[in-house]
Amino acid sequence: MPYITVKMLEGRTEEQKKALVEKVTAAVSETTGAAEDKIVVFIEEMTKNHYGVAGKRLSDM
Amino acid sequence: MPYITVKMLEGRTEEQKKALVEKVTAAVSETTGAAEDKIVVFIEEMTKNHYGVAGKRLSDM
Amino acid sequence: MPYITVKMLEGRTEEQKKALVEKVTAAVSETTGAAEDKIVVFIEEMTKNHYGVAGKRLSDM
Amino acid sequence: MPYITVKMLEGRTEEQKKALVEKVTAAVSETTGAAEDKIVVFIEEMTKNHYGVAGKRLSDM
Amino acid sequence: MPYITVKMLEGRTEEQKKALVEKVTAAVSETTGAAEDKIVVFIEEMTKNHYGVAGKRLSDM
Amino acid sequence: MPYITVKMLEGRTEEQKKALVEKVTAAVSETTGAAEDKIVVFIEEMTKNHYGVAGKRLSDM
Repeated sequence: MPYITVKMLEGRTEEQKKALVEKVTAAVSETTGAAEDKIVVFIEEMTKNHYGVAGKRLSDM
Repeated sequence: MPYITVKMLEGRTEEQKKALVEKVTAAVSETTGAAEDKIVVFIEEMTKNHYGVAGKRLSDM
Repeated sequence: MPYITVKMLEGRTEEQKKALVEKVTAAVSETTGAAEDKIVVFIEEMTKNHYGVAGKRLSDM
Repeated sequence: MPYITVKMLEGRTEEQKKALVEKVTAAVSETTGAAEDKIVVFIEEMTKNHYGVAGKRLSDM
Repeated sequence: MPYITVKMLEGRTEEQKKALVEKVTAAVSETTGAAEDKIVVFIEEMTKNHYGVAGKRLSDM
Repeated sequence: MPYITVKMLEGRTEEQKKALVEKVTAAVSETTGAAEDKIVVFIEEMTKNHYGVAGKRLSDM
């Protein structure tokens, strides 16, 4: 605890996702006081045809 | 804002998903007063082996 | 099935939320072919101190 | 209703997932009083590169 | 890991929710092989005015 | 985009939650390349009677 879900478009590299988990965990620990070893991060990737803003899917823009 | 997540079985066509985002966005804007360009829609597709009702997965029915 | 989650700031009236469920259900049925009586809608309300954009909570803007 | 989401690492067999839906549905029905035929179970599988604990992704451990 | 979310209408007693966590954890452990001490359960309660089926909120039925 | 959900026990101060949104947004921007003004953070607070680990709710420990 805490549990962080990062929902974003697919396309980041493995290096970026590695750094994302590390830095988000540090930011959460620093600001909430939770120990880093208790923090869980889930990454959920979206495809452009399953993500819409202002009534249009990014795949239709 | 608002953020709409549509969780449904896989199998709809791209045309259906395009229309889904459009019409759901319009329905949310019309009823909540939120501007269409602020509304976000996520589509999350399920497979039959990961969706159970009444104790059975649809893939086991 | 499908299952729709609408995540939005608190503050809409009960009338707006009633219409929201009705119209979103119709929009999903019309575009996906799912029968209305199978469609489920969840409303999740947020408070301004629990919703941040561009690094700031709406309660801090 | 109720709606149960099971989020876990990929890798279980179809037999395990079949039994999971069955037993979780029974457990929820027994303890909440909800009828089994009203209970819905979603399975969401994660990959090791999208799941981090203590600042590290399982794929980086 | 695994992480279980139980989304249900408000109204169960504390005793029911205590038993729910216990029995769901046992069911998940038994069927997935995950150790009980690694299993996390979240309960999310809904109110009738935020839960709609077939286009109607339960509070409007 | 990206959309970050932080699920944690209730009890942090408003100052902590303000800093949480700020630092998590910076961490996500730095590692994914997404512009800060596109990043959204949701905070979801849990109560101890709705959060269980190893078969026990924190309120029963």
